[in-house]
Amino acid sequence: MTVRQLHLNLFIYPDGHHEAAWRRPESQPERITDITYYQELAQRAEAAKFDAVFFADGPALADNIRYAARGGLEPITKMTAIAAATERIGVIGTSSTTYNEPYNLARQFASLDHLSNGRVGWNIVTTSSAAAAHNFGLDAHPAHAQRYERAEEFLDVVTKLWDSWEDDAVLADRESGVYADTDKIHRIDHEGRHFSVAGPLNAPRSPQGRPVYVQAGSSEDGRSFAARWAEAIFTAHQTLENAQEFYADIKARARSVGRDPEGLKVLPGISPFIGSTAAEARALEEEFNDLTQPAYSLKQLSNLVGVDLTAYDLDGPFPTEVVAPVGDRAFHSRSQLVLDIVARESPTIRQLCHRLAGARGHRVVAGTPVDIADTIQEWAERGAADGFNVMPPWLPGGIDVFIDEVVPLLRERGLFRTEYTGTTLREHLGLDRPASQYAPTPQKETA
Amino acid sequence: MTVRQLHLNLFIYPDGHHEAAWRRPESQPERITDITYYQELAQRAEAAKFDAVFFADGPALADNIRYAARGGLEPITKMTAIAAATERIGVIGTSSTTYNEPYNLARQFASLDHLSNGRVGWNIVTTSSAAAAHNFGLDAHPAHAQRYERAEEFLDVVTKLWDSWEDDAVLADRESGVYADTDKIHRIDHEGRHFSVAGPLNAPRSPQGRPVYVQAGSSEDGRSFAARWAEAIFTAHQTLENAQEFYADIKARARSVGRDPEGLKVLPGISPFIGSTAAEARALEEEFNDLTQPAYSLKQLSNLVGVDLTAYDLDGPFPTEVVAPVGDRAFHSRSQLVLDIVARESPTIRQLCHRLAGARGHRVVAGTPVDIADTIQEWAERGAADGFNVMPPWLPGGIDVFIDEVVPLLRERGLFRTEYTGTTLREHLGLDRPASQYAPTPQKETA
Repeated sequence: MTVRQLHLNLFIYPDGHHEAAWRRPESQPERITDITYYQELAQRAEAAKFDAVFFADGPALADNIRYAARGGLEPITKMTAIAAATERIGVIGTSSTTYNEPYNLARQFASLDHLSNGRVGWNIVTTSSAAAAHNFGLDAHPAHAQRYERAEEFLDVVTKLWDSWEDDAVLADRESGVYADTDKIHRIDHEGRHFSVAGPLNAPRSPQGRPVYVQAGSSEDGRSFAARWAEAIFTAHQTLENAQEFYADIKARARSVGRDPEGLKVLPGISPFIGSTAAEARALEEEFNDLTQPAYSLKQLSNLVGVDLTAYDLDGPFPTEVVAPVGDRAFHSRSQLVLDIVARESPTIRQLCHRLAGARGHRVVAGTPVDIADTIQEWAERGAADGFNVMPPWLPGGIDVFIDEVVPLLRERGLFRTEYTGTTLREHLGLDRPASQYAPTPQKETA
Repeated sequence: MTVRQLHLNLFIYPDGHHEAAWRRPESQPERITDITYYQELAQRAEAAKFDAVFFADGPALADNIRYAARGGLEPITKMTAIAAATERIGVIGTSSTTYNEPYNLARQFASLDHLSNGRVGWNIVTTSSAAAAHNFGLDAHPAHAQRYERAEEFLDVVTKLWDSWEDDAVLADRESGVYADTDKIHRIDHEGRHFSVAGPLNAPRSPQGRPVYVQAGSSEDGRSFAARWAEAIFTAHQTLENAQEFYADIKARARSVGRDPEGLKVLPGISPFIGSTAAEARALEEEFNDLTQPAYSLKQLSNLVGVDLTAYDLDGPFPTEVVAPVGDRAFHSRSQLVLDIVARESPTIRQLCHRLAGARGHRVVAGTPVDIADTIQEWAERGAADGFNVMPPWLPGGIDVFIDEVVPLLRERGLFRTEYTGTTLREHLGLDRPASQYAPTPQKETA
C-alpha cells in the first residue's frame, strides 16, 4: 500500500500529558501562565514542520487542582499570541458550542484566521462537565443529545457568518468613495430552535474562508456530527483494531453524506515514552507512574466511569459490576475505552490508574525511536490513521526527544515532510478552501 | 496650580478617526485586517511612552460599510497580538457586558493580563446598537436602564472571578505533590438577577489583579456606574466648560461613594489636525472634510440624533424642532453634544456633518503644535482632564505628527514622561493594584 505523508500535531498540555509530569525535575510548572513557554513549544514544533499545535479547553476549573498543574491561559488569547510568534505552523484551539454565543466565537476565529494568515483550526466541543454548567447559569449540564442538537445549529450559524462576506466584497476604492460592495455582504437571517442571528459578520472573509473544523467526539452523536462537519478528527484508541474500526466507520459515514473521505483526516493521540532501549523507555514510564497520587488518579478514574471508586482497594480488581452501561454519560468514548482495557487486561485499580495517568485514555507507547516510528507507520499503512496528535508525556523536553529521534526516521521512510509546501493550515492538511455559500456558483466553461 | 504628569492613550481607529481618512493617499485601508499594521502603531506609541493604545468595538457590522472602512479584527485577538509585539505599553479594549457571558470575558481578560505581564485594560460598554441585539437572539435592544442593571451585576461577578484565586494560591511543590493551596481558591457562588456563576475562575490571579476598568458612558446611569467602577474614563467634550463640569461631577461622585478621586482618571478625546500654521492646519481639515460623503455623514448624524434627516436640505439649518428630548436614547451623551453644538453655532446640516466627521463628536482641534500643546495644558491645569485619548484624524501618519511635534512640547513643559517608570498599565496610570476580596485582611502592626 502506498503511504501518504502523515500529519503531525503537537498537543500541548502545560507540563506534558502524564498527570505527574509537573513533579519531575525537568518540568516548568512555574511557567504555566507564561506565554513565552507556549510560544517556544510552538516554535520547536514549527522548526520540525509539524502541521499544528493543539490545545484542549473547558470553561471551568478542574476539581483536582490540589494535585494537578492546571488553570492557565485561555485558548483564544494563547492561540493568538502563538500565531504572533510563528509563521507557518497551524494553531488549533478548543471552544465550546454549549457555552459560547455563535457571533462572538465566529468573530474571534475569523480574526485569528486573519492575523495568522490562514493558520487557525477550531476544535469543536460540546463540553461534558457539570462544573462548566454552573459557571453559565445552568443547574445541570445539558444532556448529550441536546448538546449535539445545539452544536449542529451552532455550526450552521457560524458557517453562514464566515461565509457572509464574499471573498471580493472589499473594494477600498478611494476615488469613488466605495469601500465595500454591499451586494457581496450578506445578512444570514438565521432563525432556529437555539439561535436567532441576523449577521453579517463584522469582518471580511478570512484567508482560509473558515477555520479548519476539528472534532473529537466518538459517540454515535459525535461520529455522525463529525461525518457532517469535521475536517480533522482527534481520537483516542488503545489498539490498532479499534482505531481501524473507527477510521473505516468515520470515512464511510463521510461518504454516505456525500463528502470526499479525503476531506476528513483521522488523527489518533499517541503519547510516547522514548528510550535507547525498550527497557529504558518502560523504566522511564515507571518513574513517572511512581509520582502519581492515588487521591488524584482515583478521582480521575471515578469521573471517567461515573462511579465513586475511592472506597475500593487500590490493589484489588476493578469492580466492573458497579459501572453502568455506557449511555448518555459524559466522555462516552473514553468510558468505553476504560471498560475495554478492563475486559482485555483485568488490571487492578492501581494498574488501571497508571494506564490512564499517561494521557487520560489516549495510547501510551514506551519503546525505542524505531519502535515508535514502526507503530506510527503500521497504523498509517493499515488504515488506522492519517496522522497523529503527539502528546508528549512531559514538556518541554518530551517533544524534543520525539523531534530529534523519531521524526528523522519518519522522514527516512518518506512519511513526513522535510519542508512546508503551503502556508495555511488547510494546505498543510491537504484540505480545500471552501467557497462561500453566498457566492454565485462559478459558470462551467462550455466548448 | 501644580500640574501633574498627563496620561496619553492612542485611540486606534483603522485608518484614523476622520470618516474620510481612508480615501486619502496616505491611508492604508488594504491593511484593515493586517495585524502588523496595528502592531506597528502600538510600537510607535510605545516608543513615545504613551500609557496605552485603545480600541472601540461593537458586535455588529456598521450599516454604512459601503462608504466607510470598517469591519476588521476583533478586539481580544487584536489586543493579544499587540501585547505579544510590545513590552511596556498598556492595551485597552472594549467588550460588552450585554453580549458576553461573564465567565468567558473574565477568562480572556485574565489571560491577556497574564500574557501581557499586567498591561491590560477593559473598556466596559453596555453596547447601544440594535444591530447587535439581532446578532444575539434579541428582537429589540435592551433599554438603557436594563443594560446598566446587567452591567452592575456583570462587574460584581467578574470582579469576584478575578479575585477568586488569592495571589499566593499556587505552590507547585514537587516534593509534596501539592500544586495549589485549595484553601486559597474560592468559589464565588454568585446568584443574582441576571447571572448564576459558581466559579472559581480557571486561572491564577493575574499581575494586575484585575484589568484596569475603563468606561465611557456619560449619561446619568453611566456617570453613576463610572463613579462606582471606573478607574479611567474616556469622555467626549467640545468645550472646556463642559469638560470641567464633567470632571468635577465625576470626581465628586467617586468621593461620595467613598473612593479616592485620584483612583479615577478622566481622559477626554482629542483629534488634532496639526500644521506649521493654524491656517495650514485648518486647510488640511478642509481637505479631509471635502472627501466626506453626504450619504454616509447624514446617516451617521441621523443615527446620532434618532431622526432621519435625509430629506432635509444639506445647506439648510439643522431642524432642532424634530429632535426628541434626550432620554433613554442610545448614545445619550453624544446626542446631547450635537444639540449643544447646534445651540451654540447654528450650523447648516452640512456644517454639522463636517463638525462630526472628524471624530464622531469628539473634539477636533486644528492648529500648530504649540496650539495643540497649549489646549492640552489648559485643560489639564483647569480641572478638565487627567490626560487625553489621542484620536489622530488619519493613521498611520497622524500619530507620527503628534509624537514628533506635540509630545516634545509637553515634555518641555514637564507634562509628559520621557521614560516609563512602571511596567504595568496600573503603574503607568498611577492606580493601585487591588487586593483580592477573598484574601484575609492584613493585620495592622501594633506597637
